[in-house]
Amino acid sequence: MTPDERDAYLQESRGLALEYIKAWIPTEGPDRALYQAMLEYPLREAKGLRPALCVATSRAFGGKLSECAPSAAVIELYHNAFLIHDDVEDGSERRRGESTLHREVGEASAINVGDAMLALSLRPLLDNMRLLDLGRALQLLELVANMSIESAEGQAMELGWIRQARWDITPADYERMVEKKTAYYTFITPMLMGAIIAEAEREHHVHVKALARSLGIAFQIKDDLLNLEADPAVMGKEACGDLWEGKRTLMLAHLFETASPAISARALEILKKPRPDPRFVRESEIPAMLIKLRADGELSEKAYAALAPRFVKRNEKTQEDVAELREMLIAGGCLEAAKARAGQHAEDARRHWQTLSSVLSDSVHRSFLETIVDYVVGRER
Amino acid sequence: MTPDERDAYLQESRGLALEYIKAWIPTEGPDRALYQAMLEYPLREAKGLRPALCVATSRAFGGKLSECAPSAAVIELYHNAFLIHDDVEDGSERRRGESTLHREVGEASAINVGDAMLALSLRPLLDNMRLLDLGRALQLLELVANMSIESAEGQAMELGWIRQARWDITPADYERMVEKKTAYYTFITPMLMGAIIAEAEREHHVHVKALARSLGIAFQIKDDLLNLEADPAVMGKEACGDLWEGKRTLMLAHLFETASPAISARALEILKKPRPDPRFVRESEIPAMLIKLRADGELSEKAYAALAPRFVKRNEKTQEDVAELREMLIAGGCLEAAKARAGQHAEDARRHWQTLSSVLSDSVHRSFLETIVDYVVGRER
Repeated sequence: MTPDERDAYLQESRGLALEYIKAWIPTEGPDRALYQAMLEYPLREAKGLRPALCVATSRAFGGKLSECAPSAAVIELYHNAFLIHDDVEDGSERRRGESTLHREVGEASAINVGDAMLALSLRPLLDNMRLLDLGRALQLLELVANMSIESAEGQAMELGWIRQARWDITPADYERMVEKKTAYYTFITPMLMGAIIAEAEREHHVHVKALARSLGIAFQIKDDLLNLEADPAVMGKEACGDLWEGKRTLMLAHLFETASPAISARALEILKKPRPDPRFVRESEIPAMLIKLRADGELSEKAYAALAPRFVKRNEKTQEDVAELREMLIAGGCLEAAKARAGQHAEDARRHWQTLSSVLSDSVHRSFLETIVDYVVGRER
Repeated sequence: MTPDERDAYLQESRGLALEYIKAWIPTEGPDRALYQAMLEYPLREAKGLRPALCVATSRAFGGKLSECAPSAAVIELYHNAFLIHDDVEDGSERRRGESTLHREVGEASAINVGDAMLALSLRPLLDNMRLLDLGRALQLLELVANMSIESAEGQAMELGWIRQARWDITPADYERMVEKKTAYYTFITPMLMGAIIAEAEREHHVHVKALARSLGIAFQIKDDLLNLEADPAVMGKEACGDLWEGKRTLMLAHLFETASPAISARALEILKKPRPDPRFVRESEIPAMLIKLRADGELSEKAYAALAPRFVKRNEKTQEDVAELREMLIAGGCLEAAKARAGQHAEDARRHWQTLSSVLSDSVHRSFLETIVDYVVGRER
């Protein structure tokens, strides 16, 4: 399958989910603002990986396209609700090339919009009860219940590390977190949904899940690697968002496992600094102003002593800090190590795919799944 | 039924829900911190109204106690998840006599804990599929799906008024918001759950819903009235939290409908001031300090001109403002008007109850429901 064909498949599947969602979202009435905000992220440009994985898995096993629509919609709704809440939780500024939702409508409304999307995702799950037989509809519901617990547990692991300022994360810890936080709702659940819709035999579910898990972990490692691509010394705060944010990655886990105590200590020193916070920009200039005013004799020693302690300089990360950290990761072979680990998961994925593809007859859907391994590991954006 | 018997009924029903939840929440393992945080609010002292309404309605119609447990658990999980997210959205400090969850674990984790509880609430809904017949289990699921949409819409209405600084809320607007935000998950859904579990006839559902709606609106008006009881001039920030927060209530709607332009303007002036924010306490002292230092000659005019514009005093609500606002509401007969409106809804509730109780045989469950009307309108806490 060519990259263009692959992209067309992705967009078509995403369109299926979006049409389904838009069909029962009111566009008028007193709650219009809420529903408009719910469509904000789903309508921005995106790859549409999740609906496509559901559709392709189902159809490769002989499932019907029409039976996939509610499940594709559920997974899109969950995905976007998670993004909204994640963005609030991480204090992120940008999402899909535009402002994050909480920057547009405030944190309170953004949390509520996410909740509304989670609530709304129950509707297509109920539609499944009418569209499919009850057995499949219940399995899909159980799958989604399980997925949302796994996602919350993964998110709790990551937030716990941040709150406890923990950096002694092993690669195994990282992969467990990523499996829960990313793989479950990006690969495992959409693909298992497809297998359930198509009534694939139970023994195949095991391979679908193993394939999806490997793809999910490889996908996230690659995502983290892509984040480090641009040099912050040139690109400023647009580059290496994960390093600014202090996100736990396989590369950093590798650095702390292998680097000298001196290098580890320096990396930790940078990571512990908060990232620049626009809410404190005003305050963070004050210490320098006070020093200058005192030097110019505009401020007495007494006034300086009264004012200065109130404006302790926030020791924020600088562009140089982030560039230095990135250099440490490169010099320490951490990117290579992570690439190798992603490659291992991709190999696992290929192995599971071999087993699985042997029972699937030739189709565009099978071809799409086949290109996914290369896409996940080889993607440049 | 005596108040003691009523309280015992409430506590027993709440115990049923809590035992059910605790039975499948892991107490050990790597995700212990997440699950502990999920139990934080449910285990604090509370009335337990929602599970009791589900149990009493079901049993009054001849339903089995054991069949109520999952539904009672669902409603407790949703209730507490909403409380956690509401507290973050409102920036609240206290909940049930202790710190709010986000003050304890941070906003990011608190949002995620709420999401995890919403996710977990799918489990008992699935248990219903095994415990009850599919017809009832699906009706319960549909009910919960509908409830969570209604709640999110109600919350969006209220947050929208706050964001747009709107105070032209009519009593009808207020009641529509309260029906969606409070009545649905406090009365309508728990009681309809009970009716479904007991397989009550369809025609009775209509009366249950009408009764629950009236009770829900009366309950919230009473809640808002109780909030105004203590005098902030004596109690400080502990009293009249709704006025500090600028919450839209029936009393304020009545004030703006009936007061003179001068009084309305003054009320608006107070309401538009932000409440004191601990994050700005440090900054809010600076303007006074700068003025004093300049008067003492410790600061030149030039230094003052450079520093002062950076610390515009936040025109925050004071204790006197809030006490004045409360006096306006009392003098304007707004409390009386709201009490009268709550009384009308209570009357409606009694009317629906007459119709309903005539088909219920005598039981402790019917007695409990009967005391609820008096409890809701007459309660002192």
